[in-house]
Amino acid sequence: MIRGATSCLVLGGGGFLGTNLCRRLAASGLRVRAFGRQCLFPQELEGVEWLQGDFADAAALAAAVETSNLVFHLVHGTKPQSANLDMAADVQYNVVPTLALLDMSRKLGVQRIVFVSSGGTVYGDSRQIPTPETAATDPITAYGVSNLAIEKYLALHEHLYGLSFRVLRVSNAFGPFQVPLKNQGIIAALISRALRDEAVEIWGDGSVVRDFVFVDDIMDALEAAAGDQSDARIFNIGSGEGRTVREVIAAIELLLARKLDIRWKDKRAIDVPVSVLSIERARDVLGWTPRTPFEKGLEKTVSWWQSRKT
Amino acid sequence: MIRGATSCLVLGGGGFLGTNLCRRLAASGLRVRAFGRQCLFPQELEGVEWLQGDFADAAALAAAVETSNLVFHLVHGTKPQSANLDMAADVQYNVVPTLALLDMSRKLGVQRIVFVSSGGTVYGDSRQIPTPETAATDPITAYGVSNLAIEKYLALHEHLYGLSFRVLRVSNAFGPFQVPLKNQGIIAALISRALRDEAVEIWGDGSVVRDFVFVDDIMDALEAAAGDQSDARIFNIGSGEGRTVREVIAAIELLLARKLDIRWKDKRAIDVPVSVLSIERARDVLGWTPRTPFEKGLEKTVSWWQSRKT
Repeated sequence: MIRGATSCLVLGGGGFLGTNLCRRLAASGLRVRAFGRQCLFPQELEGVEWLQGDFADAAALAAAVETSNLVFHLVHGTKPQSANLDMAADVQYNVVPTLALLDMSRKLGVQRIVFVSSGGTVYGDSRQIPTPETAATDPITAYGVSNLAIEKYLALHEHLYGLSFRVLRVSNAFGPFQVPLKNQGIIAALISRALRDEAVEIWGDGSVVRDFVFVDDIMDALEAAAGDQSDARIFNIGSGEGRTVREVIAAIELLLARKLDIRWKDKRAIDVPVSVLSIERARDVLGWTPRTPFEKGLEKTVSWWQSRKT
Repeated sequence: MIRGATSCLVLGGGGFLGTNLCRRLAASGLRVRAFGRQCLFPQELEGVEWLQGDFADAAALAAAVETSNLVFHLVHGTKPQSANLDMAADVQYNVVPTLALLDMSRKLGVQRIVFVSSGGTVYGDSRQIPTPETAATDPITAYGVSNLAIEKYLALHEHLYGLSFRVLRVSNAFGPFQVPLKNQGIIAALISRALRDEAVEIWGDGSVVRDFVFVDDIMDALEAAAGDQSDARIFNIGSGEGRTVREVIAAIELLLARKLDIRWKDKRAIDVPVSVLSIERARDVLGWTPRTPFEKGLEKTVSWWQSRKT
């Protein structure tokens, strides 16, 4: 799947997507190194070399990049909400260390960087639904601006230095190993709280539409992007379908055969009403397709949470 | 021209565009304050309050913003070439201080920020010539990326906090008060060196096409943007016409009635082959039009250089 790559580095390898990716890559027989501030599930990363470090620590980062020829950049040092509260900090934690990463990657001979960008925020409140990669990018959160800036710097490094890259603009991801931290991951929050008989706070009235994509499908896309030899650089990765938050709640209630306890709160200025990605480019160019029906993904996620409880 | 604005602040007010703008605003009877690291022509800023300071010095900047209700942001702490050599420094000198500016502007009640962006770099090597504001933005210099990021943060601050803004993407400016510093300003370099019988180094073979716009026309556009009440936010400002560097050299040779001494050097990766802006939006929405024919602008520029020599 990934030509010539023998040693992979997963930045943010201790998080939700990172844990899934490390497991997938290790299962493919690749040498895998994970780097991050925190490892959520150390026991799940068997056979993976774990390097604890801060993305903004250039020396630690260089030690991780060295001897790696394929780098997956999954670090997001901030979240959509916190990024708006201190936009300069968002730049310092995400953009500036990425520039250091790009610089050392070209010097250390990295063959390709695959960056997971934010399909839910780079477009802003798009007039095109489902939103293609060619749509205008007018983020309404600083998180979207910094992700977009990173995308532009990746393209610039390819132009100037030939450093190969791919960007995946991933929509709302869900699945095993996602834990509801810092107000992220609504499905993880709904399931985990329901299993503990706790209430969940949700901003808005549940009418916002999101594109929920199951984590295994994202892993397929990451592998495909790592080996892609096409002229395309940026790919939307989502389910291609929109669901309201109310529909998601109903689906979980059906699966768990119980009513969820939702506390509705005022909507936030950073939440766009509708976010659904067009995934035609990834289908056509990567030959990728989301294989997991939403209900199936929910089932797997519920099973994972139930296995944790026991 | 500018409704309700009584006190203007020109950030970068000591530079080429800044000096021209301060003089224009002061002549309109407005209270004008200029802020910058260096004032190129202090004797030309009669009636303008000059505040020496670094854009990255938040306290100095806040003192300048206070009591101003209209802010012109003309600071570019780096240049297209130097920005690529240290992209993180470009972020630190341009993007981060702009975020501080936006934060203090909304807190101090600034009515509008007008930002001069880089029409020559934000689009990159565009497939659409002349390039409209809606074209893809794929910069091939870090300078273009940071200018683009600033544009996005301006839009974000309007979305979140109602801070009003306009962006002018200005093409290659020329005219009085432009001095050839840090390899910028090819027309200033050609004229000033010719008058001193010195050679000029030029990258490439002179076939690159640029959109040269006379500084007085840019001043018209800045005034129009400051007072604009339309729904548009971003405007290309150029002449709408492309000229090769060789054509520019020929026009100057004709005016000065002498051959210029050019030293041709290898072309640079940061120079796009063609950069010409479509200016239809500014014509339609701002009612603005470039009034100065290229040869007339050259004449005025030569006269200015000749007046400096005597």
